[in-house]
Amino acid sequence: MSPRDTTEESRRATIRTVAEDAGVSVAAVSKVLRDAYGVSDALRARVNASIAKLGYRPSKAAQGLRGRSTTVGVLLVEIANPFLPAVIDGIQDTLAPSHFRAMIGVGRAQTHLETELIESMIDHGMAGVILVAPLLPREVVARYAQKIPTVLIAYHAPDAAPFDTVNSDDRRGGALAAQALIDRGHRDIGFLAHHGAGGRKPSVVREREAGYAEALTRAGLAPRVFDLTAPPEGRPAELVAFLARPDRPRAVVCWSDLDGLPLRALAAQAGLRVPGDLALVAYDNSPMAASPAFDLASIDQHGRELGRQAADVLLARLGGRSEARHLLVEPHLVVRSSI
Amino acid sequence: MSPRDTTEESRRATIRTVAEDAGVSVAAVSKVLRDAYGVSDALRARVNASIAKLGYRPSKAAQGLRGRSTTVGVLLVEIANPFLPAVIDGIQDTLAPSHFRAMIGVGRAQTHLETELIESMIDHGMAGVILVAPLLPREVVARYAQKIPTVLIAYHAPDAAPFDTVNSDDRRGGALAAQALIDRGHRDIGFLAHHGAGGRKPSVVREREAGYAEALTRAGLAPRVFDLTAPPEGRPAELVAFLARPDRPRAVVCWSDLDGLPLRALAAQAGLRVPGDLALVAYDNSPMAASPAFDLASIDQHGRELGRQAADVLLARLGGRSEARHLLVEPHLVVRSSI
Repeated sequence: MSPRDTTEESRRATIRTVAEDAGVSVAAVSKVLRDAYGVSDALRARVNASIAKLGYRPSKAAQGLRGRSTTVGVLLVEIANPFLPAVIDGIQDTLAPSHFRAMIGVGRAQTHLETELIESMIDHGMAGVILVAPLLPREVVARYAQKIPTVLIAYHAPDAAPFDTVNSDDRRGGALAAQALIDRGHRDIGFLAHHGAGGRKPSVVREREAGYAEALTRAGLAPRVFDLTAPPEGRPAELVAFLARPDRPRAVVCWSDLDGLPLRALAAQAGLRVPGDLALVAYDNSPMAASPAFDLASIDQHGRELGRQAADVLLARLGGRSEARHLLVEPHLVVRSSI
Repeated sequence: MSPRDTTEESRRATIRTVAEDAGVSVAAVSKVLRDAYGVSDALRARVNASIAKLGYRPSKAAQGLRGRSTTVGVLLVEIANPFLPAVIDGIQDTLAPSHFRAMIGVGRAQTHLETELIESMIDHGMAGVILVAPLLPREVVARYAQKIPTVLIAYHAPDAAPFDTVNSDDRRGGALAAQALIDRGHRDIGFLAHHGAGGRKPSVVREREAGYAEALTRAGLAPRVFDLTAPPEGRPAELVAFLARPDRPRAVVCWSDLDGLPLRALAAQAGLRVPGDLALVAYDNSPMAASPAFDLASIDQHGRELGRQAADVLLARLGGRSEARHLLVEPHLVVRSSI
């Protein structure tokens, strides 16, 4: 047992100490707290005076048991992606004026950990969950959504019934990036795609790739997709190998700044001129892309807005809406010196 | 009321459905769960069979009320600092083989939000909390530590009794950075310091500055401290103004890569050679500092190790230790082309 138990019991106001102070039964205090039928004004005043005097706050764990938690769980696929801080900021922006607060779990790109954390959020009686780019397959997400109001960000499932989704229009973003290169006269344009853990391409990557391919096909050009499959520690070597390919395309749309930023730096190190030898558009418009050290053209998917809308959609679900909503946010291209 | 309530009640195994399935009373199931005295082997086997069959898991919220939560709360001062992902990784490394899992709150550099989140963690019956660089004053942290086992990271309070601390030896790190510049022949070495919200210098910044000043004084040089006080959106302009000062020092120790990375990029933009016109050592050895685009010398404070040790210390407290522990992790300098 931890040293906490006795300390806390002796110092913290409980429903019992409130009852003793007010000179009423615990059941009477409970009635006042629940705003139950038949409580007299005199009893209410007496109990509330003791609550204020003792600084008693009903335990959120107890509220959780009664289904009234004010905590929203947020599950992140992993923690290092520079796209995530803006999303979390957006969620907190929307929740701030409400009585809801966010509590975040990090799945470390492991489905078993995602499962554990969602179950822990359910067990803690959280009011709802926002899942950001989870790896879990759709059927599993749907099953959890039966147990707890669920909104997904960066996870395309536009016809899902049991849960809501809020996404950047990744297909449109992929097309915007490709079109920018086509408009600058490029004909040999590749797409650098990412495989997540377990070899699956996340739905946002599939959408970006599809938009890229559509734009090229419309222009009469042949799409060329290059799959990045190395884990994070092996990625730099994989990017160097890509740059050294004799058939390397002259222009590239990269699925994310996560690979686009090191790609630009490694290209410079390899003596390649950007955009002369390699024109580059990446994705996320993360803070570093704007740095003069990179000055990387990138698609902005408005992470903060995605977070805000996801929290809005969740609050509406907690307010009683039951039909699913699927929102798309329009991305835009930030032009910089890499194209 | 949310649409969740009825759905969940109808689908989820409860202590009641377990009792019905086993053909025993709810009180009997509760005794088995608590491993109470006097439970027969036959009853235990019968109840456990029903628990397994129905997939019943006792609610963590209910466990929280009994003080047996397996969740550890982690409070981050804010989300965007690139030092944080390593710390969270380290905490998760240590917790992984235990039955504890981390749930994270983000304080957005606002003390009132820090307060709310810690109280929410207590109310959720979390087993303990790890606070990362909180802004709350020490007396307030000490008060919470009476209610819940508490460990602080990146917060110097070496004589605090009610809580534990795990820090990088920031004074040593500041001295290491200054000494590296002294060893390269620099005599005019400045320190760029950071003021947090409310104008207070965080304790880690004060320690780094003190280590820097000690190293300069030992070498017979005069310390020059420049305080950065602008909020994040105004920081680039403040750094540009610093670079334009006629009395700008020729070498700088910067309190963090957060300002050190843009400083190096802005110096290049202003036509300054690094290290010829400005030698630079920053702090945190964040992933971007290692990028060839920055190649920034930086003090590594081993964030992952800080996270691991903090979780170790918390687990030991949960295991019964009550005297405070204050650990320092030795930092080291990563030499790159900026010095």
